[in-house]
Amino acid sequence: MANFQVLHQDSSSAARLGMLHTAHGQIETPVFMPVGTGGAVKGITPYHLKETGASIILANTYHLLLRPGVETIEKLGGLHKFMAWDRPILTDSGGYQVFSLSPLTKIDDDGVEFASHVDGAKIYLNAEIATEIQNRLAVDIIMCLDQCTPFGVDAPQLEKAVERTILWAKRCKKAHNRPNQMLFAIIQGGINQELRTYCAQELVKTGFDGYAIGGLSVGEGHDEMVKTVRHTMTFLPADKPRYLMGVGTPEDIITAVMAGIDMFDCVLPTRNGRNAFAFTENGPLRLRNNTHIEDSRPIEAGCDCYCCRNFSRGTLRHFFNIGEMLGPILVSVHNLTFYQRLMAKIRQAIKANNFAERAKELIMNY
Amino acid sequence: MANFQVLHQDSSSAARLGMLHTAHGQIETPVFMPVGTGGAVKGITPYHLKETGASIILANTYHLLLRPGVETIEKLGGLHKFMAWDRPILTDSGGYQVFSLSPLTKIDDDGVEFASHVDGAKIYLNAEIATEIQNRLAVDIIMCLDQCTPFGVDAPQLEKAVERTILWAKRCKKAHNRPNQMLFAIIQGGINQELRTYCAQELVKTGFDGYAIGGLSVGEGHDEMVKTVRHTMTFLPADKPRYLMGVGTPEDIITAVMAGIDMFDCVLPTRNGRNAFAFTENGPLRLRNNTHIEDSRPIEAGCDCYCCRNFSRGTLRHFFNIGEMLGPILVSVHNLTFYQRLMAKIRQAIKANNFAERAKELIMNY
Repeated sequence: MANFQVLHQDSSSAARLGMLHTAHGQIETPVFMPVGTGGAVKGITPYHLKETGASIILANTYHLLLRPGVETIEKLGGLHKFMAWDRPILTDSGGYQVFSLSPLTKIDDDGVEFASHVDGAKIYLNAEIATEIQNRLAVDIIMCLDQCTPFGVDAPQLEKAVERTILWAKRCKKAHNRPNQMLFAIIQGGINQELRTYCAQELVKTGFDGYAIGGLSVGEGHDEMVKTVRHTMTFLPADKPRYLMGVGTPEDIITAVMAGIDMFDCVLPTRNGRNAFAFTENGPLRLRNNTHIEDSRPIEAGCDCYCCRNFSRGTLRHFFNIGEMLGPILVSVHNLTFYQRLMAKIRQAIKANNFAERAKELIMNY
Repeated sequence: MANFQVLHQDSSSAARLGMLHTAHGQIETPVFMPVGTGGAVKGITPYHLKETGASIILANTYHLLLRPGVETIEKLGGLHKFMAWDRPILTDSGGYQVFSLSPLTKIDDDGVEFASHVDGAKIYLNAEIATEIQNRLAVDIIMCLDQCTPFGVDAPQLEKAVERTILWAKRCKKAHNRPNQMLFAIIQGGINQELRTYCAQELVKTGFDGYAIGGLSVGEGHDEMVKTVRHTMTFLPADKPRYLMGVGTPEDIITAVMAGIDMFDCVLPTRNGRNAFAFTENGPLRLRNNTHIEDSRPIEAGCDCYCCRNFSRGTLRHFFNIGEMLGPILVSVHNLTFYQRLMAKIRQAIKANNFAERAKELIMNY
């Protein structure tokens, strides 16, 4: 059986409903993946994380490589056991963090040497090593090593990065040797349509279990992001899952689903949650605000999350005011639930076959 | 019906099994109360807190008085709703913190003026105000305002503090006007046996729902603590609950139960948990230690807590190493469960009517 099935294609847009089959269970798409950077979605126990409705999470290879290291995770029984998470896990390849967090020391066609942002230790990563690491982490979906470029990089550099991304993806495919583990390739090319076309075509020709669009949500703005996604989508096969990396706001997600994207990850719900910013259908609440001091309402009326079922805005405001950990934890839980509810609404609208219309309403609400 | 019943008196010691009846449910004694300083047991959601087996928690009037204030908690529906905790709550009177955390500005027989340790605001507390605050917090058990003295204070000061503690307790009893809320008096007197006798006799004469021994575990050491507890117990009525405040280590608790104490609170399991110190029957584990890096065992074999069911020592060590909140949270959960299991073993041994013997074994194990 194929790893991915399109269950329904919306007739009003490119949105589709799908099912992804992994070694740790099935995932309905479009899906949102909470980010578990260092082996945990910050502050959230797996019990509460499951209760938000998360069916798959993302873990960062870069962070886990630095601490505690792959060998340690392997000795502790693999990443699922390490994190106490028995549902599917996707790992990124580490590429994004290598190019954004670390002082680079050397990059060539073979790979990249960088200095750990923790202790400055020199670490070498190439296609084979990134694949081996992710094979050993024993997760469900792994990503090819890609070269990420910052927004606005000049054309020759962008071109070079795309060539390397294609080359490395082919080597990752060759190196990949874990059964029951899907390998996704990442399409780079900034907002250059020709490069996106070229990168997508080359990767599709090589053949992967899924395709991701990387290098967006890095400063290009919503419109350029959407334009690039729509353009790139036309070169991707309909029968493989499509993943838009690191995106985004509710509006970004709805728009990308309309263009045919199936998978998302983003730190927004948790990072914002830790900063007392709560998502609601009526716009954001900033829970440090004095207006919430005596407010006995939950963050969002009718929300069935653990936070809204139990805590008032007044209590949450108090927790942030005194620096109590439960503040960041509970608002993260709410925001993650909010994102899962958004995805459920999206899937429902696709089933109802009127996503284009419903998407406009959803965007209005967020 | 009385608020408290002694169900079984151990024949080998003064230990007894009891049942405390409160507006939010029954509590088997001897009982350990986790400390929820500012409206939360730090970092622990009520879901996980219940799972540790906590049947009653303590909240600090002093901290809640400063932030968010009693009026706010009242407007948000009382302390139970504010904290999302539907089991019994005991509040201390604030006395201990006033005398340990705050720069005092004025104390006389009427009451005490102190400066908030948060913002320096002048706050006045006396017997009537402390009682009214606790009445309004709508908890199950409240404490009389007492004057706490540091260890080693001179005799005239200690004597004066005892006199005030007795005077204030009488005024608290008079001021107390919330039905379904028990009022406990606190016996002071340092390690001076005559003063302890006098204070206990005066308070028992006045008559309260329960009696607490305060002013211990402040530097006098285990032996003096035990001596003072044993001495004071002889003046307390058998049919009322007895509470040893702020105590303590497993050994302290076992010894105090043997002397006839029914209730305990202490920050040790949570404070130590936040510092990577885990209690086990084979002695403490310090989870920042490198020896745990690749250790796939739980903190304690056979422990059924959420932490031990799901996480290895290796993962916990990693969480502390990277500063992930789940480290402090999970080890607190384990330690709280460890304390509840200790209390369950103590109750079982009393039921089996051989507490004195079993206590020796228990102390050996901790």
